[in-house]
Amino acid sequence: MDSVKVIEIKKSVFASNDKDADNLRKELKDKKIFLLNLMSSPGSGKTTTLIRTINLIKDKVGVAVMEADIDSDVDAVKIKEATGIQSIQLHTGGMCHLDAEMTRQGLDNLDTEKTDLVILENVGNLVCPAEFDTGSTCNAMILSVPEGDDKPLKYPLMFSVCDLVLINKTDVLPYFDFDMEKCEKNVHMRNPKAEIIPICAKTGEGVDKFAEWLLKKIKEQKQQ
Amino acid sequence: MDSVKVIEIKKSVFASNDKDADNLRKELKDKKIFLLNLMSSPGSGKTTTLIRTINLIKDKVGVAVMEADIDSDVDAVKIKEATGIQSIQLHTGGMCHLDAEMTRQGLDNLDTEKTDLVILENVGNLVCPAEFDTGSTCNAMILSVPEGDDKPLKYPLMFSVCDLVLINKTDVLPYFDFDMEKCEKNVHMRNPKAEIIPICAKTGEGVDKFAEWLLKKIKEQKQQ
Repeated sequence: MDSVKVIEIKKSVFASNDKDADNLRKELKDKKIFLLNLMSSPGSGKTTTLIRTINLIKDKVGVAVMEADIDSDVDAVKIKEATGIQSIQLHTGGMCHLDAEMTRQGLDNLDTEKTDLVILENVGNLVCPAEFDTGSTCNAMILSVPEGDDKPLKYPLMFSVCDLVLINKTDVLPYFDFDMEKCEKNVHMRNPKAEIIPICAKTGEGVDKFAEWLLKKIKEQKQQ
Repeated sequence: MDSVKVIEIKKSVFASNDKDADNLRKELKDKKIFLLNLMSSPGSGKTTTLIRTINLIKDKVGVAVMEADIDSDVDAVKIKEATGIQSIQLHTGGMCHLDAEMTRQGLDNLDTEKTDLVILENVGNLVCPAEFDTGSTCNAMILSVPEGDDKPLKYPLMFSVCDLVLINKTDVLPYFDFDMEKCEKNVHMRNPKAEIIPICAKTGEGVDKFAEWLLKKIKEQKQQ
């Protein structure tokens, strides 16, 4: 059966990737570089959120961004134009996720001399990116209001691997049947430790809280 | 390099799957069963669209639904309660897509005696489901307004394999920067033959056009 074959193959890939990811995480810790792996569905607002956040913190910490996409470089260009920070595009060649080796290739193409924080914007996908450890210091994800409050029920792994869940597009809450309390319960059913921050990247509401969360985490890593 | 290894493995899986898919498509044609593979991002409104559509056509054709999800059975239950038709849930065991063999397993669990149309609601994901031919008669996808008009630029394969693109949640067009004309251009850049139908599954607007499209396609298959 084909489906079983695929699973077996993936397992060996996972094992090797986990080791690569642990090595990369250790190296980054030694260099005092915080790597945030940001995941979400397509169109949840990753790039807009990053632009807002980077402009709030770029005078306090050195920030660089790696934008992963199957095709196009629209996001890397947007980030560069809107924030002025170092931004590169990673083309995944059709791959639906990034693994630790691909992340390392991206990092090798960044000047990390004065960089405290590297943000990896993963491929828009709620399934596969959760299966591959990128070597990141922290995982975060964005769930946007139009996607619905039931997503933690359907995409359990994504929510269980994330330290932080940003709930974006709160400005359109009046137009969707989205229950914030129910959503928080669903997230915590998958991951009781996950922190949740509601934001609106379009208006900026709540983005300061995400910025504070990031600065605190970066500081904690440097003190370890 | 891990990423290259994965690509090589996938190719052999693809080749075998393509053959299975062609066999399944031929069998379904002989049985006069039309299989629609419906794909989209998580939260684009697949289930709501299906409920509206099925209620418009169920007196004219025999319809059954297979709901694919990594976990939970909320969608299959919703469909059954709201339409009364035959509805089953397929758990993919963590897999991010359905292939032809998995689709066949689902079909084997359906009573297709009086069924003209089987709708497969694929896993919510704009990447992997596009890579695996399910054996479907037609592929359709839903792009929802909040996801943005640039998605065909970022997820080229999904748009190029779909015969029909439904643009859902048109009721919230005033609240998002979504340019319908630009979106249609982006879709046609990936697939000049793709048909596009704007709909609002919540209010029902445009869903009758999708229903007509389906009835016409089913009729065409029966006459072949």
